[in-house]
Order: sequence, then C-alpha cells, then structure tokens
Amino acid sequence: MPELIKINHIAVAVEDIDAALSFWRDALGMRLDHVEEVPSQKARVAFLPVGESEVELVQPTNPDTGTAKFLAERGPGIHHLCLEVQDITGMLEQLKAAGVRLINETPQELEGRRIAFVHPKSTGGVLIEFYELIK
Amino acid sequence: MPELIKINHIAVAVEDIDAALSFWRDALGMRLDHVEEVPSQKARVAFLPVGESEVELVQPTNPDTGTAKFLAERGPGIHHLCLEVQDITGMLEQLKAAGVRLINETPQELEGRRIAFVHPKSTGGVLIEFYELIK
Repeated sequence: MPELIKINHIAVAVEDIDAALSFWRDALGMRLDHVEEVPSQKARVAFLPVGESEVELVQPTNPDTGTAKFLAERGPGIHHLCLEVQDITGMLEQLKAAGVRLINETPQELEGRRIAFVHPKSTGGVLIEFYELIK
Repeated sequence: MPELIKINHIAVAVEDIDAALSFWRDALGMRLDHVEEVPSQKARVAFLPVGESEVELVQPTNPDTGTAKFLAERGPGIHHLCLEVQDITGMLEQLKAAGVRLINETPQELEGRRIAFVHPKSTGGVLIEFYELIK
C-alpha cells in the first residue's frame, strides 16, 4: 500500500489574510514563514509551520474557485486536509480501485510537487489533498 | 511566548465510525491504532496515526454534545484542529490578553493531558483545541 508520511498542511479559508494573521500569528504566536501568490489556486496563501506540518491561510483572489465558493456558502474555516504520500499515483490507483471519487484522476504537476484532490462525497465530508514531494 | 509543538490531531465528526473506517482505514490505508469510548466527550473515537499527528474520527454517543450538533447542522466533516503546546496555561493567558474568546478559561485535566477549546468566533471559524501532555 502507498505510504502516508504526515499531515502536510491544514488549509483554512479566510476572507482576508492580514486580518487572519492577527489571530494566527499575533495572538497564537505561530511563525509566519511567508505569504505568496499561488496562481494555480488563484489565491494568496500564508504559510505558518508547526512541527512537521503547516497551517495555510488561503484567501481566494478569484470568485470562481472552490475556496471562494466555500467562503460564500459556509464562511471562513478549515477548508481541506493535505496528506503527504510517497507515491501519489499509487495512492490514486488504490482509491479508484476502492470506488473513491477523485476530483483529479491524475496528479497535477506543480513546482517541486504533485498534488490531487479527492471528493468529499467519498470521504465522509472531508476534502482531502494528496501531496507528493518531487525529489 | 508559549511554544506550539505540533498538530496533535484533526478531529473528523462522523455519524458512524465503522462506516467511516471503510474510507480512512480500508481505502486510504491508514493504521487504526484503536477505538475507545471517551466519556469526557460523550463520544466513541477512532485514533489513526499519521506522522507525528493523528486523525481522530469522533462519533457522538449523546445528542447533547458539540459534535452531535455540528453533525446535525453541517453534516460530517472536519470538526476541529488540535494543537499541542508546552504550556497550556500560558497559552490561554496569552490568548485572553489578546482578547480571544475561550470556551475553557482554564484547562480541563484529563488522564495524562490538559485540554482547552478556543471559540471559533475568535479564530476565523476554526474550532481549536489546545493539548498539553502531562509529563
């Protein structure tokens, strides 16, 4: 079975990163690694490491994205869980064989990583991202 | 500032642990450490370790709990994020000083750990649990 390594990150949908940082960085004391524009997600993302994982604050920059729709429907909150795996292709094949509905049938290749999302309908309401680091 | 150690767990509210395990354990291949009754939460909880963290599947055993109300209102999904800290009392004081609304003003002491919840109104929609291991 393809190995699960760790929680890579928890993504939190936010209306405004700077306002959100007043809680996550200033009150809670998390270290802000950096904020970057992520064109593939049409979002600005703040990266806050904790242990071997990160909290990512995701502010959509386009209303036509999953995160923007999530914010409009449910308000800010935890948007998805990202699990890091050793072999994302093997994981997607394993899930397909088990009848799990995938949003991405094959991984998207981004800079330094491969990612794919699994539909929350098949996971009991949790949007899951898989993440494989390209070595 | 009180140190944040890691993501201790992500709690997922489920209607039925056995049905949920067909995804998390059987399809995804997570290791089920154990299932236990947690009287303090009025829930049955399945513990699935991944890296230094866990995914916890929480099935309420009483309709008068936060998790049961969450399920009734929003359906199954990620219920809260638990951050492990070195000094939970220091963290709660720091948050109070920053004007953050706490569900537990002082930590609850359970077997081997102290825990406290922070109100999602103050965090941008994320229910956060703090967890301190008693050494």
